[in-house]
Amino acid sequence: MARFVFHPAPEVGRVLSLPEEESHHVSVQRFAPGDNLLVSDGRGRLYRGRLLGEEKKVQVLIEEKVKEETPPVFFSVWQSLLKSPSRMDWLIEKLTEVGVTEIVFFPAERSLREGCTGGRLRRWERIALNACKQSGRLWFPEVVSVSSWEEFLHRLSSFKGDVVLADPLGERSVAEVLGAERFSDNVALIVGPEGDFTEKEKREIFETRKVWSLRLCKTILRSETAALFGASVFIAFMEVHHAGGNKDSGM
Amino acid sequence: MARFVFHPAPEVGRVLSLPEEESHHVSVQRFAPGDNLLVSDGRGRLYRGRLLGEEKKVQVLIEEKVKEETPPVFFSVWQSLLKSPSRMDWLIEKLTEVGVTEIVFFPAERSLREGCTGGRLRRWERIALNACKQSGRLWFPEVVSVSSWEEFLHRLSSFKGDVVLADPLGERSVAEVLGAERFSDNVALIVGPEGDFTEKEKREIFETRKVWSLRLCKTILRSETAALFGASVFIAFMEVHHAGGNKDSGM
Repeated sequence: MARFVFHPAPEVGRVLSLPEEESHHVSVQRFAPGDNLLVSDGRGRLYRGRLLGEEKKVQVLIEEKVKEETPPVFFSVWQSLLKSPSRMDWLIEKLTEVGVTEIVFFPAERSLREGCTGGRLRRWERIALNACKQSGRLWFPEVVSVSSWEEFLHRLSSFKGDVVLADPLGERSVAEVLGAERFSDNVALIVGPEGDFTEKEKREIFETRKVWSLRLCKTILRSETAALFGASVFIAFMEVHHAGGNKDSGM
Repeated sequence: MARFVFHPAPEVGRVLSLPEEESHHVSVQRFAPGDNLLVSDGRGRLYRGRLLGEEKKVQVLIEEKVKEETPPVFFSVWQSLLKSPSRMDWLIEKLTEVGVTEIVFFPAERSLREGCTGGRLRRWERIALNACKQSGRLWFPEVVSVSSWEEFLHRLSSFKGDVVLADPLGERSVAEVLGAERFSDNVALIVGPEGDFTEKEKREIFETRKVWSLRLCKTILRSETAALFGASVFIAFMEVHHAGGNKDSGM
């Protein structure tokens, strides 16, 4: 399945010890000393390395950089926490596959009220990493859990880019607006909880900054379906309108 | 959760006995005799009925038709069978939510080789029905399992509408083509298995009829993610370009 292993800072000529989970991955895949391995730093760079003699921690000599890319667009999904942990896991896998660059969970009145920490966050990072390997993505999404509504508003106010609120009652639809308007290459999509934001929360969002309030489609989507639907439509269209810019040495 | 119950043929003035599962649903939701209930036929019509005195099978007197709609677009997903049953279940739920009108599973060289029957099909219909209730959809998708590759090709040759093949190597992307070309309001999206179709299968598809061979996005998607991604992008855009046409008496 996996096309590469991950190390946060590969460098040509250096010998790396792979992180534990990645070492395990190499053992399972039955690589032998001398085999070529691809190593990504999760920030768009891909290296070819050679597996050294077997040790408990797998060591790789990085021999060359073979590819470097930046995402064609930066797309963040800010999703209010879901009550079902398995639906959050699922959402992280899918958003990573389609190319989202940041996933932020935040508490809202009608969602879980507290951010996630520690073990849960590490689990999410692992899911995102595996989805990157599955889909050949070299840019790993950040997965963030915001601890309070106030922190969410602060993040919203300081975001440099276009912000879209998925609003089932929005007058204009995403597809209509994508056909008519020009977005920057840095977009955040806010998705509320099942039962939507309260009126007070919506007002606070609108008071914080300019937000596009857009309908996604004609039916009512579950919260996590809305997130994936919106991300898919935006990414498909932004990839066309912001094409080019990747350096690729042909792998 | 559910906004309505299902009966295949409601008629104003008639007393219906609800199907078993729907009766159960009414009991769980603690409706009482005399309560109003919404009843959909799954073909776009919604009725208001009144619950009659408690019986083992729940009976409803249909009093008026309150809404009738046809889907703004007909969108079929033809998905090669997945090896993981839970991923197929998941896909049916999500495709139903976003508004797909037909879901066809078919065998291919690199997928499960045999169609599904009996219990599995009934399970899928139940998942689709629940997703309709969740999302307020009045038009239930058909869920079909095709038994052989030959039957799939036959279905392909007789389909009246535009056919799109999700092709990771396609030269043009879906978003590019949706912006430039005009599709009919009846589209089928073919999604191959993990590892894609064989060359022979692809050739047979192209020999059967005109097919748009389009890339969905820049990363490699799992088979079921590709299906949902493609459906989301098409439905969002087709809803804008094929707007209007629903009769709605205001519910």
